[in-house]
Amino acid sequence: MSSQFGKTLTLSTFGASHGMAIGAVIDGLPCGPAIDIESLQAFLKRRAPGQNRLTTQRKEGDVPHFLSGLVDGKLSGSPLAFYIENTNQHSKDYGNLRDIPRPSHADYTAQLRYGEGVDMRGGGHFSGRLTAPLCVAGGIALQLLAMKGIQVAAHCYSIGPIKDMIIDAVHPDMEALIKAGQETVPMVDVTVREDAAQYIDTMRKEQNSTGGVVEVFVTGYPAGIGNPNFDGVENRLASAFFGVPGLKGIAFGSGFEASAHTGAEENDAFTMAADGQTIVTKTNHCGGIQGGITNGMPLIIKAAMKPTPSIAQEQDSVSLSKKENTKLIIKGRHDPCITLRAVPVFEAVTALVLLDFLLPEMKEWS
Amino acid sequence: MSSQFGKTLTLSTFGASHGMAIGAVIDGLPCGPAIDIESLQAFLKRRAPGQNRLTTQRKEGDVPHFLSGLVDGKLSGSPLAFYIENTNQHSKDYGNLRDIPRPSHADYTAQLRYGEGVDMRGGGHFSGRLTAPLCVAGGIALQLLAMKGIQVAAHCYSIGPIKDMIIDAVHPDMEALIKAGQETVPMVDVTVREDAAQYIDTMRKEQNSTGGVVEVFVTGYPAGIGNPNFDGVENRLASAFFGVPGLKGIAFGSGFEASAHTGAEENDAFTMAADGQTIVTKTNHCGGIQGGITNGMPLIIKAAMKPTPSIAQEQDSVSLSKKENTKLIIKGRHDPCITLRAVPVFEAVTALVLLDFLLPEMKEWS
Amino acid sequence: MSSQFGKTLTLSTFGASHGMAIGAVIDGLPCGPAIDIESLQAFLKRRAPGQNRLTTQRKEGDVPHFLSGLVDGKLSGSPLAFYIENTNQHSKDYGNLRDIPRPSHADYTAQLRYGEGVDMRGGGHFSGRLTAPLCVAGGIALQLLAMKGIQVAAHCYSIGPIKDMIIDAVHPDMEALIKAGQETVPMVDVTVREDAAQYIDTMRKEQNSTGGVVEVFVTGYPAGIGNPNFDGVENRLASAFFGVPGLKGIAFGSGFEASAHTGAEENDAFTMAADGQTIVTKTNHCGGIQGGITNGMPLIIKAAMKPTPSIAQEQDSVSLSKKENTKLIIKGRHDPCITLRAVPVFEAVTALVLLDFLLPEMKEWS
Amino acid sequence: MSSQFGKTLTLSTFGASHGMAIGAVIDGLPCGPAIDIESLQAFLKRRAPGQNRLTTQRKEGDVPHFLSGLVDGKLSGSPLAFYIENTNQHSKDYGNLRDIPRPSHADYTAQLRYGEGVDMRGGGHFSGRLTAPLCVAGGIALQLLAMKGIQVAAHCYSIGPIKDMIIDAVHPDMEALIKAGQETVPMVDVTVREDAAQYIDTMRKEQNSTGGVVEVFVTGYPAGIGNPNFDGVENRLASAFFGVPGLKGIAFGSGFEASAHTGAEENDAFTMAADGQTIVTKTNHCGGIQGGITNGMPLIIKAAMKPTPSIAQEQDSVSLSKKENTKLIIKGRHDPCITLRAVPVFEAVTALVLLDFLLPEMKEWS
Repeated sequence: MSSQFGKTLTLSTFGASHGMAIGAVIDGLPCGPAIDIESLQAFLKRRAPGQNRLTTQRKEGDVPHFLSGLVDGKLSGSPLAFYIENTNQHSKDYGNLRDIPRPSHADYTAQLRYGEGVDMRGGGHFSGRLTAPLCVAGGIALQLLAMKGIQVAAHCYSIGPIKDMIIDAVHPDMEALIKAGQETVPMVDVTVREDAAQYIDTMRKEQNSTGGVVEVFVTGYPAGIGNPNFDGVENRLASAFFGVPGLKGIAFGSGFEASAHTGAEENDAFTMAADGQTIVTKTNHCGGIQGGITNGMPLIIKAAMKPTPSIAQEQDSVSLSKKENTKLIIKGRHDPCITLRAVPVFEAVTALVLLDFLLPEMKEWS
Repeated sequence: MSSQFGKTLTLSTFGASHGMAIGAVIDGLPCGPAIDIESLQAFLKRRAPGQNRLTTQRKEGDVPHFLSGLVDGKLSGSPLAFYIENTNQHSKDYGNLRDIPRPSHADYTAQLRYGEGVDMRGGGHFSGRLTAPLCVAGGIALQLLAMKGIQVAAHCYSIGPIKDMIIDAVHPDMEALIKAGQETVPMVDVTVREDAAQYIDTMRKEQNSTGGVVEVFVTGYPAGIGNPNFDGVENRLASAFFGVPGLKGIAFGSGFEASAHTGAEENDAFTMAADGQTIVTKTNHCGGIQGGITNGMPLIIKAAMKPTPSIAQEQDSVSLSKKENTKLIIKGRHDPCITLRAVPVFEAVTALVLLDFLLPEMKEWS
Repeated sequence: MSSQFGKTLTLSTFGASHGMAIGAVIDGLPCGPAIDIESLQAFLKRRAPGQNRLTTQRKEGDVPHFLSGLVDGKLSGSPLAFYIENTNQHSKDYGNLRDIPRPSHADYTAQLRYGEGVDMRGGGHFSGRLTAPLCVAGGIALQLLAMKGIQVAAHCYSIGPIKDMIIDAVHPDMEALIKAGQETVPMVDVTVREDAAQYIDTMRKEQNSTGGVVEVFVTGYPAGIGNPNFDGVENRLASAFFGVPGLKGIAFGSGFEASAHTGAEENDAFTMAADGQTIVTKTNHCGGIQGGITNGMPLIIKAAMKPTPSIAQEQDSVSLSKKENTKLIIKGRHDPCITLRAVPVFEAVTALVLLDFLLPEMKEWS
Repeated sequence: MSSQFGKTLTLSTFGASHGMAIGAVIDGLPCGPAIDIESLQAFLKRRAPGQNRLTTQRKEGDVPHFLSGLVDGKLSGSPLAFYIENTNQHSKDYGNLRDIPRPSHADYTAQLRYGEGVDMRGGGHFSGRLTAPLCVAGGIALQLLAMKGIQVAAHCYSIGPIKDMIIDAVHPDMEALIKAGQETVPMVDVTVREDAAQYIDTMRKEQNSTGGVVEVFVTGYPAGIGNPNFDGVENRLASAFFGVPGLKGIAFGSGFEASAHTGAEENDAFTMAADGQTIVTKTNHCGGIQGGITNGMPLIIKAAMKPTPSIAQEQDSVSLSKKENTKLIIKGRHDPCITLRAVPVFEAVTALVLLDFLLPEMKEWS
């Protein structure tokens, strides 16, 4: 179904930007593990808007209210359901959207699909706001993975034309990534980070926006997980990632750059690790996956986000009712670079997919 | 399941490179339409090996034997099953692979997943040979789409560092693409095509290989198809594309380049078409999809293929039994650029996914 | 997943008997139709406990709080989510259940499956209370089916050894069934109804309980809906029906009795209807389905419910911790005949499954 | 999809009664176990027609040709595909069926669903012949279950009005059942068996047919397998069982009879087994499943089969083209009691579903 993904662990989201609430049901979580709500809330804060001038000034608490699945702070094994109230809606900002679709938004396609009556205020069910329940679910998945020594951390590989330093693919500095994740602009290199902040601010001032690439790293994930052909780790991650509004591309390891390389450059030669037992690869161009199955090296995923389509400049559009060309000015408060807030979102989705693969293999969690 | 994809139209592949046969079952095809077997066979020939010096010299007929689903040349509505005999196996070429895994192949991860006994001769069930049944199924899907005026055509966007001419995203020249598809190097620009051929030949002589990017265009596909969130056109295409061995990344429209653009550059402004009725966009950076739903513009998908990992050079690997480093020389005949033969494969997968979305909307086919 | 069913229309339930709330998410509903909440609440009341001496004296409002999917009283096309608060829990009644499993309850198997920590107060996630969200979702489905002239109505075919009158399988008296559905004992024959009421009351006084068979009728459902083999109307109804706690068997049309008949007795001969156009059958032993596909005759489904396992008599059980035999007395208030309240539940599940099949065929709902 | 079932282990069948071949693909089998083909062939013979005067005189070899998934007689872990040639088709027997549908067959509903062109000779894809691939797949599943000490055996609980002896639900005599399975009429009680044989022969002579109930027993299956709500052992078994043509009802344990019992009669009291460790129940009315999860007691499933609808008597039907009433005489050779041959089929389906549940729990098979 459209609002669901997962096989052993299923996430089912609900809600719309300007409805009463958004939320999700997660089915398939193990019975027993304790969830640290405070730590979860800290994770959610990384995605939440209104933190500073580089992100939208809307303020939404993003506090999940749990309806089921938690008993005395522990996962009960039955579906975990929660909702987040929508408290900060400016519906009037969306007055003319029903007739004049915003360029590069889903306003027009939503009407084609659901009919004229569809509620697209704030993006409706297509809104980036739906990534909040993804982060609640993913935040819980991250805690479960951490219990098994698995770390997931992402940074902005690039913001517009500005690139962060290259992270070592064989031994990624997870601490540096986690630390960067706390920054408004989650980049590892401090100088680049400042440049990027300035670039975003310029975009904002120019009533423009910018895209960016998020790069996710995972360490400690077991080897031998996944399947060939159509149910590999890449298949499921790719499908789930495209559930995040604004994604234009996904790649693993060296990704699109691999296509410009030769086999001699790109192949990951095997070698024995220092322990004399573990088989590793000297390089990690593949991003930790071969034939849909993990090989024990760090997982590396790149996600290309388009620039925020809501820009304050006047844009060309059409009146659907009058069937004529017209101009559109989008009101309201919008992120000049949605990529910043997408960083924890992709960590969350990565964690959900990886946990989904792991659950049939690891039965004991508490 | 690992060997399946699709929702209304399900493809279930089987077989291994060095087993008796490969094939597939397709469930959900409409009842009635006639299939042109000759045209199907011509499509399969584009993928088949042994055509010239740029592709592997193995010769396999790739003739599908239909077991069910066709009555008097017409689709019967019940599952269509077929197999292709494996006639040209050189198992001795794979003597030492069980112990010494080939770099950037699935030999090692397959053993982790299935145990030491797994049959990985020729890549086993992970082999690129499994793309032959994909092309049979996809070839049928292409014929069905054509009945509705939908065209699918792909070219090599790039081979290694060499890029084909830019194809117009709003009005792609489908004829030129289809014509290019008949070439050994399926590129539109004749000069670039010759450069690429020479580059591949150089790679072959140097016992090396190259990657490339395939770009698929679809015209005539209806607007309003797809779903938001996790079951959009992008989600399903991305998941299915990663069923093709060697894929490292997938992107839609301007893809990874979108992340370096500004919103003002990237947004696709709406405008009324010349007919005064149809709503189109002036540009097509989104690749024909917004919010998981088609907008009526051409669909554009980029698929980044890694260089063929089987190269004739000596490579570093390990002996799994002895747990020590060793050298490996891969014998046999291999494509210096698998991307060439991947072009019809991605056309096929695209057609299967798009037909899957279309079937609940279009009930009459004959 | 365990808490979900449906293909185009997916229901995902959550909650436990003694948790904060129960509820569900329904994905795939059409955009536009108005829902009559008052009528929905009246439907829920038929399932709700505490109505009279024949059902448990627990009083639960069963008022759904909608979180999303309804805008101005109309379905919005995006997932509909709701919860029902649990207001009337007597957790102390379940003090010793963790160690001494109740016979013919899921207490023991739940611990095998989820571990000792599983919360089974009131049946936990296995509780019959989970049929409340089923009824909310099914109540909405019933309203949608009614818009297309489809009626669903059920009665108690039998309570213990007492059988209701036979309902005509070709022309079922839907009005009589709907009227009976408003009774405490939903049987059509008034005399039988009184006998059954007395029988149940006797069971209650004897600290015992009784089972029963629910029979569901559907009229107005289109012919030609469903699929052969593993995705027929029977397959999906059967699978969904077993989501109702206490079900021991399901049958279609003449069901188990068909197996004692001869072909000459059981075959449903075709004949032209009075209109000279419609093809009908003279009898309806098949219950409206052949080869998994509806034939336009009324659908008839029988569901056999076991007697309520919670009886006040002392029963034999074991102490799981001491691994020794022991006695158990179940406290609290329990239905002597859960079958009574199962009648609207099976109407609800039937409606959900039939709507799921119908949605790809009928796109216009408002 | 219509021709598929299973989650970890997926079966995908294909073929039609009068097509070239029938067969299936099984995905998800473990890598390593050796399959005893001779023993599999002996199992298939129990379903095959033409064995004696009580079953149809059509002779079909039912020899599976394996295309993939077996290497040196061992399961390879990749999808197992096979086909069975259709060698004995009498298409002329089905000349007028396209216009005059056979009562209680799928001829009419198939045309409603697939259009007039659908090939229904011999029942097409709806044919009982599709149970042959079910038995090949199920025969392999039975061998895998046997490796873990799990036995599956069925008998005819009843043929028309004639009932076999009651099999002990707590300690079923599996040897007696397996022995009975070798008989033409698979009943345990010799006298009943002869009565049933005579009854079937009488039906045949009278150009009539009879139904029957198959009862399946499973011993040795682990406790704690399955899920609550919509993915329990009963849900999946029920859904898969309705893939067998002719099924009218399914029940577990005491089934429909439970609904006439009191709680005191029906409840299965717990007690410690003689070993002082194992928890068992004194009775087994539930048929080994509570809350969708196995409790370690034998599994018991009843399947009610309708009488063979193909009877030689003249029957009432209609001409679809002329829209008028007419008479129909069905030619060809048909089983007077299809229930006999359904016995191994339900063993096969049971084994497939139970193996599907078991595979995520038991990773080591060879």
